[in-house]
Amino acid sequence: MMQKKEPIIYKEDTLFLLDQRKLPLEEVYVECKNLEQTHNAINVMVTRGAPCIGFTAIFGMALYVKNNLDFSLASFKEAAEYLKSARPTAVNLAFEVDKLVETITRDKLTSTDCYNKIVEIGHRELKKSEERNRAMANNIIEHLTKTTGDRKLRVLTHCNTGYLACGSIGTALGVIQVLSEKKLIEKVWVDETRPYLQGSRLTAYELNNLGIEHNVVVEGAASYLMKNNLVDAIFVGADRIVANGDTANKVGTSNLSILAKHYNIPFYVVAPSSSFDLSISSGEKIEIEMRPEEEILEYKDLRIAPKTSQALNPSFDISDGQLITGIASELGIATENYIETLKGIVE
Amino acid sequence: MMQKKEPIIYKEDTLFLLDQRKLPLEEVYVECKNLEQTHNAINVMVTRGAPCIGFTAIFGMALYVKNNLDFSLASFKEAAEYLKSARPTAVNLAFEVDKLVETITRDKLTSTDCYNKIVEIGHRELKKSEERNRAMANNIIEHLTKTTGDRKLRVLTHCNTGYLACGSIGTALGVIQVLSEKKLIEKVWVDETRPYLQGSRLTAYELNNLGIEHNVVVEGAASYLMKNNLVDAIFVGADRIVANGDTANKVGTSNLSILAKHYNIPFYVVAPSSSFDLSISSGEKIEIEMRPEEEILEYKDLRIAPKTSQALNPSFDISDGQLITGIASELGIATENYIETLKGIVE
Repeated sequence: MMQKKEPIIYKEDTLFLLDQRKLPLEEVYVECKNLEQTHNAINVMVTRGAPCIGFTAIFGMALYVKNNLDFSLASFKEAAEYLKSARPTAVNLAFEVDKLVETITRDKLTSTDCYNKIVEIGHRELKKSEERNRAMANNIIEHLTKTTGDRKLRVLTHCNTGYLACGSIGTALGVIQVLSEKKLIEKVWVDETRPYLQGSRLTAYELNNLGIEHNVVVEGAASYLMKNNLVDAIFVGADRIVANGDTANKVGTSNLSILAKHYNIPFYVVAPSSSFDLSISSGEKIEIEMRPEEEILEYKDLRIAPKTSQALNPSFDISDGQLITGIASELGIATENYIETLKGIVE
Repeated sequence: MMQKKEPIIYKEDTLFLLDQRKLPLEEVYVECKNLEQTHNAINVMVTRGAPCIGFTAIFGMALYVKNNLDFSLASFKEAAEYLKSARPTAVNLAFEVDKLVETITRDKLTSTDCYNKIVEIGHRELKKSEERNRAMANNIIEHLTKTTGDRKLRVLTHCNTGYLACGSIGTALGVIQVLSEKKLIEKVWVDETRPYLQGSRLTAYELNNLGIEHNVVVEGAASYLMKNNLVDAIFVGADRIVANGDTANKVGTSNLSILAKHYNIPFYVVAPSSSFDLSISSGEKIEIEMRPEEEILEYKDLRIAPKTSQALNPSFDISDGQLITGIASELGIATENYIETLKGIVE
């Protein structure tokens, strides 16, 4: 097991972000000293994962204030909108930034008071995230073990939802960590998660650091594994969950939700309540971010496809609420009839 | 459009195989002058695709005879078994090699007569493949256009099933070529097909050469595309089709068959009748080849995953016959109740 590196460090008026593009082979930090650098770090995915994007955004706004101590509320709001544009699908980004705007508007904070307050909020949110992650993990485990008992499980996960994405133990990967602490994990199937390979690069890196038995598989192997009874449960994170349970998450999640239903395998979504956006009635209304086609057509500047070929690179997809076994946040778990049950856990 | 390079050339007692591992960026041929080199070329996937593996195997057996003119029937059979072990799931490999063994046994051919006969068979089979591919394409198109009419189609395909895999226009990609000739293609979604990237490397290369509009997508985007009504039909090849319609094909195919059923999109399997193995009752009895984990964990010798992580790399999966809209060979198309209908087109 290697030493765990913190994904986000804020000290000496500087935001240090573990460069997740270079993991697992290199562990280096990118330094952000202003809003633009923070916007860029989110946009090019130095940092990623809905919760970490949220924490990064808080510190990004702190840096904005630090560099513009004579800011007006209007310019603060403008900076907030600019930062939100770095990853339009990630609701936590908008959530954290909008919450800051509210706080600053309400408390009429200016200059260094405001700066100190925002830095404090950033540290506090980071700290609270482990507590929240453990709560959501326990909500899932309680529901799942009603049927699986104390049997060791083979579980599948998609993308990266651990401490690299969440600042603490993570959402879907947090469930796996807590299951492992309870000696309930036999094996984790880590799907590599194209095009960005968050699974094989980041989730495998975290599972190594945690000493949890795992195998990387291609996403195409999901049906093979399920058909051969090698998957007991699937855990995924979420970027946005709307009123009817429809869930935006890393592209490929929706495939898994349909396969899980076909094979009758429990499929859980695990996300902080800040990912809930119950003002939206259904997933059709969620904007899907299209990312650069080079993410598919190249690997580390090596061209894969013919130079003349193009790609379409939707970064997220929408899983139908009705295919999801349970949606858990730190506030509780919702199952079935999400229009009622999600409202229930939020209120 | 570039000049099309033949994937298999046999001349001057040498087998030239277009090295498909290096496409699309380099167009180089690997030379095989004996059985071992041919075995290796199949095993390491210089050549690939069920039909091309079959043609390669015929020429490989020719090379065996050339180098062992005093061969016995027993040693010929031993060489045949050795060659068949290069890719155990590819039924065409066994089919072509077993057919040769039968011919040689029956005709009692020896030395150069035998050599010339095998080379002739290889050339004849290659030549016949376009005729067969066009027949199977027309069988599919006739069935599909009963519902789609003369509407231009957005179609999705997996892996590579064109001339690089088949020696002529191909199976699933052959359908797309014939549809394009009939001006019935709007766009082809080429899924990249991890881990070997046959889609982004080879299918995109062929579609470029053919001048057919296409976009590369990750496999995880399949549900996104289908949910957004961007896919009118799916065509895949097959390595082995058994009595009840269960179909072994490149890993990821089974995922697509389940998604297609969920979204009610026609899902067609296109393969030469030599891929039919009706002596096997169901897909559970098909052996699935496991390939090296480095195919997943590395890209061109660059490590992707942590050095300590392992992978599971099943190369094929089994699609349930009952999820398949139609199975076409050069002999006709079977739909529903495959135990009867497949027997019907073979007999």
